[in-house]
Amino acid sequence: MAGNRVVVYKGPGEVSVESFDYPKLELPDDVVTGLGLKRAAPHAVILKLVTTNICGSDQHMVRGRTTAPVGQTLGHEITGEVVEAGDDVLFVKEGDICSVPFNIACGRCRMCNEGKTGICLNVNPARAGAAYGYVDMGGWVGGQAEYVMVPFADFNLLKFPDREQALEKILDLTMLSDIFPTGYHGAYTAGVRTGSTVYVAGAGPVGLAAAYSAQLLGASAVIVGDMNAERLKQAKSFGCETVDLSSGNDLVDMIEQILGEPEVDAAVDAVGFEARGHGAEAEEAPATVLNDIMTIARAGASLGIPGLYVTGDPGGIDEHAQQGQIGVKLGLGWAKSHSFVTGQCPVKRYNRQLMNMILSDRAQIAKAVNATTISLDEAPASYQAFDKGAAKKYVIDPHGMVG
Amino acid sequence: MAGNRVVVYKGPGEVSVESFDYPKLELPDDVVTGLGLKRAAPHAVILKLVTTNICGSDQHMVRGRTTAPVGQTLGHEITGEVVEAGDDVLFVKEGDICSVPFNIACGRCRMCNEGKTGICLNVNPARAGAAYGYVDMGGWVGGQAEYVMVPFADFNLLKFPDREQALEKILDLTMLSDIFPTGYHGAYTAGVRTGSTVYVAGAGPVGLAAAYSAQLLGASAVIVGDMNAERLKQAKSFGCETVDLSSGNDLVDMIEQILGEPEVDAAVDAVGFEARGHGAEAEEAPATVLNDIMTIARAGASLGIPGLYVTGDPGGIDEHAQQGQIGVKLGLGWAKSHSFVTGQCPVKRYNRQLMNMILSDRAQIAKAVNATTISLDEAPASYQAFDKGAAKKYVIDPHGMVG
Amino acid sequence: MAGNRVVVYKGPGEVSVESFDYPKLELPDDVVTGLGLKRAAPHAVILKLVTTNICGSDQHMVRGRTTAPVGQTLGHEITGEVVEAGDDVLFVKEGDICSVPFNIACGRCRMCNEGKTGICLNVNPARAGAAYGYVDMGGWVGGQAEYVMVPFADFNLLKFPDREQALEKILDLTMLSDIFPTGYHGAYTAGVRTGSTVYVAGAGPVGLAAAYSAQLLGASAVIVGDMNAERLKQAKSFGCETVDLSSGNDLVDMIEQILGEPEVDAAVDAVGFEARGHGAEAEEAPATVLNDIMTIARAGASLGIPGLYVTGDPGGIDEHAQQGQIGVKLGLGWAKSHSFVTGQCPVKRYNRQLMNMILSDRAQIAKAVNATTISLDEAPASYQAFDKGAAKKYVIDPHGMVG
Amino acid sequence: MAGNRVVVYKGPGEVSVESFDYPKLELPDDVVTGLGLKRAAPHAVILKLVTTNICGSDQHMVRGRTTAPVGQTLGHEITGEVVEAGDDVLFVKEGDICSVPFNIACGRCRMCNEGKTGICLNVNPARAGAAYGYVDMGGWVGGQAEYVMVPFADFNLLKFPDREQALEKILDLTMLSDIFPTGYHGAYTAGVRTGSTVYVAGAGPVGLAAAYSAQLLGASAVIVGDMNAERLKQAKSFGCETVDLSSGNDLVDMIEQILGEPEVDAAVDAVGFEARGHGAEAEEAPATVLNDIMTIARAGASLGIPGLYVTGDPGGIDEHAQQGQIGVKLGLGWAKSHSFVTGQCPVKRYNRQLMNMILSDRAQIAKAVNATTISLDEAPASYQAFDKGAAKKYVIDPHGMVG
Repeated sequence: MAGNRVVVYKGPGEVSVESFDYPKLELPDDVVTGLGLKRAAPHAVILKLVTTNICGSDQHMVRGRTTAPVGQTLGHEITGEVVEAGDDVLFVKEGDICSVPFNIACGRCRMCNEGKTGICLNVNPARAGAAYGYVDMGGWVGGQAEYVMVPFADFNLLKFPDREQALEKILDLTMLSDIFPTGYHGAYTAGVRTGSTVYVAGAGPVGLAAAYSAQLLGASAVIVGDMNAERLKQAKSFGCETVDLSSGNDLVDMIEQILGEPEVDAAVDAVGFEARGHGAEAEEAPATVLNDIMTIARAGASLGIPGLYVTGDPGGIDEHAQQGQIGVKLGLGWAKSHSFVTGQCPVKRYNRQLMNMILSDRAQIAKAVNATTISLDEAPASYQAFDKGAAKKYVIDPHGMVG
Repeated sequence: MAGNRVVVYKGPGEVSVESFDYPKLELPDDVVTGLGLKRAAPHAVILKLVTTNICGSDQHMVRGRTTAPVGQTLGHEITGEVVEAGDDVLFVKEGDICSVPFNIACGRCRMCNEGKTGICLNVNPARAGAAYGYVDMGGWVGGQAEYVMVPFADFNLLKFPDREQALEKILDLTMLSDIFPTGYHGAYTAGVRTGSTVYVAGAGPVGLAAAYSAQLLGASAVIVGDMNAERLKQAKSFGCETVDLSSGNDLVDMIEQILGEPEVDAAVDAVGFEARGHGAEAEEAPATVLNDIMTIARAGASLGIPGLYVTGDPGGIDEHAQQGQIGVKLGLGWAKSHSFVTGQCPVKRYNRQLMNMILSDRAQIAKAVNATTISLDEAPASYQAFDKGAAKKYVIDPHGMVG
Repeated sequence: MAGNRVVVYKGPGEVSVESFDYPKLELPDDVVTGLGLKRAAPHAVILKLVTTNICGSDQHMVRGRTTAPVGQTLGHEITGEVVEAGDDVLFVKEGDICSVPFNIACGRCRMCNEGKTGICLNVNPARAGAAYGYVDMGGWVGGQAEYVMVPFADFNLLKFPDREQALEKILDLTMLSDIFPTGYHGAYTAGVRTGSTVYVAGAGPVGLAAAYSAQLLGASAVIVGDMNAERLKQAKSFGCETVDLSSGNDLVDMIEQILGEPEVDAAVDAVGFEARGHGAEAEEAPATVLNDIMTIARAGASLGIPGLYVTGDPGGIDEHAQQGQIGVKLGLGWAKSHSFVTGQCPVKRYNRQLMNMILSDRAQIAKAVNATTISLDEAPASYQAFDKGAAKKYVIDPHGMVG
Repeated sequence: MAGNRVVVYKGPGEVSVESFDYPKLELPDDVVTGLGLKRAAPHAVILKLVTTNICGSDQHMVRGRTTAPVGQTLGHEITGEVVEAGDDVLFVKEGDICSVPFNIACGRCRMCNEGKTGICLNVNPARAGAAYGYVDMGGWVGGQAEYVMVPFADFNLLKFPDREQALEKILDLTMLSDIFPTGYHGAYTAGVRTGSTVYVAGAGPVGLAAAYSAQLLGASAVIVGDMNAERLKQAKSFGCETVDLSSGNDLVDMIEQILGEPEVDAAVDAVGFEARGHGAEAEEAPATVLNDIMTIARAGASLGIPGLYVTGDPGGIDEHAQQGQIGVKLGLGWAKSHSFVTGQCPVKRYNRQLMNMILSDRAQIAKAVNATTISLDEAPASYQAFDKGAAKKYVIDPHGMVG
């Protein structure tokens, strides 16, 4: 127990697993210095990782599309076992297996009080909101690791009621730390409800989770769009309709072909700023998906936008995009009285109820996103496979606890 | 009673009052042809105009910034007396004085059922939503006139309970057809509630109405920004703080100066696509206001966007803007988890409750927007004065009924 | 086409099918006289009934538990084909097959504007809200008949998109007029959402529809309570858990047995004022179900109460109950910060989205409630069977149109 | 600093100020034993009371209408200065002046996560929810005292931004601990918004706060009903209409006299279970107010019920009332589709925004409820005066800090 191993960003296209000190019950320097908080963290726990997933948003860093420095630790999709708890941890104890929302939150500020844990005011001196192992997100050590420190543990942790049951369903439960709630948030904020027709742009893990969540929310039809045939096949595997955006066909026509009308009730952007245009040779065009969903969502719709848009992108297509400014057809949305809901999913708003669905066998999210278990040492190779478009959700099992 | 006189667009910068036929209880050609509705309209009434206001959105047409053809009739802020009613009008009768929501709605479609009367599906073959006297809005004859036909009258009309009282308070009540609800919608959808701090961009009539509405909604501080000194003075007259955007000072600094913090709880864009940048020599920059309100609204805020954004703008600053595509710093809003609420105000959602405020002497909206009565023949001159920045809301009194 | 045949209440325990005049496009006397509306109804249609169901709330009248006079026509669960349409009917036409919400609404008043069609202000001089064939509900002729007049048809009718498809799925679609939306309303207003545990009191058709709707809304567990073994078996048939209230076991214990905790997230009263206490010999005790659901719903829950409570009950257990005053353990609910949502379901709020579920094969409501087709002449016998507790939903097929 | 003095219940009609030990940073026995929490409370602070108010709900105990034992400490309306803080208190520090929500909450459970701090699951072994100095509320020592311990301080405390300003406005700010939010909650959950007409039953401090809050929420008319002339006069002092329930006049008639119609849009029960009937000689009738507000609220209304209803009342009018079961005319509410919102106000949901209103001089709540400062030793006499109907809100100033 004297050390820790963590996945680290080593420069564009490269990650490695490196040795770190075993974590302490202490806040990171950025937060101590920048916000003036006490370093000692009696509210924190140390978790031994049970599972920790690779996320599409990690890829933005690894592709060099953010300002992440070499040495940035990675990993924010964390499920673990409590192995040490501070003096002010009252409601979880050693041996409990818990899901950790990717957004770090204090539980004590105005935003947390309002349930907006994605924009907590006390965990990042740079802006509202923080996460483990992410650039500009407060300097918290990443959780693609053997161990990780979780602050404000009573607030942040979702304890699974039964250890045996948790380990049995761990490939589903591991999705509660990010993509299942994030996908659900996308569908929910898009206004999906009983009987809605839904379009989800993007068939990566978040897009698949959004599509699956739309089904849970009662959608009467869910259409997923992507350019990757393997990912579209994955979407079909649990009952979605699909449209192939590399086909060169018009999106509106493809929607109409399926539904008999050219519009959907609700639309989700599960792609974000690295969007490409349509057709086989499509180049990057960062507002493509936003403009698409305005085009095919009916008047009065709400657009769920869990896909990430950034304030700075070194690899942006032009100087505007590099500053996070993109060409949005806002007049189109305005004419249709659209609402746009952006930002990180506040995981705590949804993770308990989604856990209930998994534990009662009513949600098979692992299967929907094609969860695939790997060892910590396989992380670098899996980053590459994922970047190439593998229709898989990689779940790291650092201690060999997954059956 | 054999004719009608209506204000008409004659080309950039020019309007005149022209003679038309007296209206009939019939739907316009566009709707009959394009949507296949019966021409005969037993659900309609003819109103004798009591008041009819000039709106900032009329100016977009008159400045040549839309595709409005020469000959386009104008006027959608209508208050009138019922002088004729069709066979299926059950709940208003001759002599009733009523406010007319600027958005025409059938009351029978899915959107109307959901209260989304700004995007009714049955009144405009070109898109969802319609209005009187407006380009692309269904071909309905404008109401800056002596008489006007109002379809689906039981649904669209808000009857004032007492004729005498209505005429007495007519300068307040006339604002119920558009700007009072539109301003209120901006503040309401921006999430203004008891104790909020609020920024309203734009001190034209809608901006002033939004600021006034923010006060009704319980804001603890309302700051209005504009470049026009006279309009800022008008905002100050009813207790708003103001920031002068022509000053060259930084908006964030000016907000902090007033509030002691650089952010507000809620922000409203009451400007729209003809926005200019900051400073004395600022040129048109269509996403300025959107980007401003993302900058100064706190994380988690909702942004109310009653200001108009269009799908086509012949006078746009570049080819993108001419197609309604503008450079939005979406990453900034995304990082702050902002929501954006766009579109026409569905007037019916608010007009009854705002009428109650006027009739109980709890809202003095006419004073807040500086209502100024003119004759129908003074309309052309008033369009020009308004375009030059007069801090006035022009109320046309076609029949000399206003005291 | 010269006449009509309608089911009529003949006194406690007795109904018959009687001859009436063919309906006209006219409002009933009560409404014309009491509210001063025009008798001629250009907004109305005549429907030829395709299906028309017997409802549990009809039983209150037939058992003599209301002030319904002998001669009261019956039937408010109406699906029909348009055979005649008034001059101001624009959006449905002859041959369309439509579902009729049981609550009659004008579409033009403040309540209808707010979507509260169960309490329309213009259709019943006695109180807010009306229905076909029901005591105190405005004098509208009942729809357990061959033909029926539907006023404000564009507003009230839900048109099925395809006639063939509609006839094919008619046993599901017929439930859209009342019990499917009513059950859904119960579950929805009880706050059921993804992952909720739910208790539904009552396994009659509305209770079964509430349980089924809870599943559509994403409940992780649905428990149905009743005393009737056959009805409980019906609830089990589509995946509900059940508790037998005639068993003498404590409800709290039975809930805990199933869920591992003694409380549910959401509870629905699908019984109403004719409730009985628990145990084999239980007698009528009108607040039993209300007090039960306060007992087993967690703190903070919302209680959905579609079960009917009346203002006068000639058969009430005491003088208080006869006036509609019952012994509610309000302190219990208050201590748990419960909310109580009562009243008629506003069918239009839900029927379109539930139709989508049926047409896309995602809802099998007919099977859940055990829809059973009968002829008009079999109505009297079916009333009796239903009153004896048959676990069936009787669907009258007056013209032999159901396959 | 070696001791503490606290107001204590000594039996029906009697309170006294008694000596206690100075509080420690420890949880009370009930919570430690009953819930198994650690006794040591590094999350807690000790407050020196600045102000601490007598509440109408204290009177229920002092009148012997609860099961409070002799020796029960009193006081839950607490404003104080931090004089000691545990190791895990990060966001308040010694010298800060803070308002304390009367409902004690952990900030870490599902209910707190949902903002339902009135029913926290971790602070009372007997039921959800706790309070300082109240029977059945977890055994927390009361705050009508010199010092008090506040657990989970970062979560529970609302810090005033400026000490000087806080002391200057302390008579307004002291109302944030209970009655201002509680009154606001009543009005808010009754659905009061811009333009509503409102009836508030009860002109005690909570009723007055509800009426004042209704004005802040934009009511167009607020009517307050009571039998106490002095309290009605107080309601009139800030612009309410009043109805005298001791007059023998019919409530409906009195409402109609004022508004011109017999119904209001929204109604609040600020009385609770010790309600009396109407007229000069009215006797206790516990459901009177509930039945009144169902009678005069329009169809579709929501009823806000901050008035307390209990699960046991030794002084109840009959055996039913003694068990908390009362005769509610539920059929009346059901026919009108009323919703009923009950329970403790979750103070944190509102106290920040109401503080903003006070600090920006937009709310004068002290004046509205007639705040009257007394010493700790004057508490017993003030309890008696309040019980006799004094139209005052007594504010105890234990350390002579109020100017």
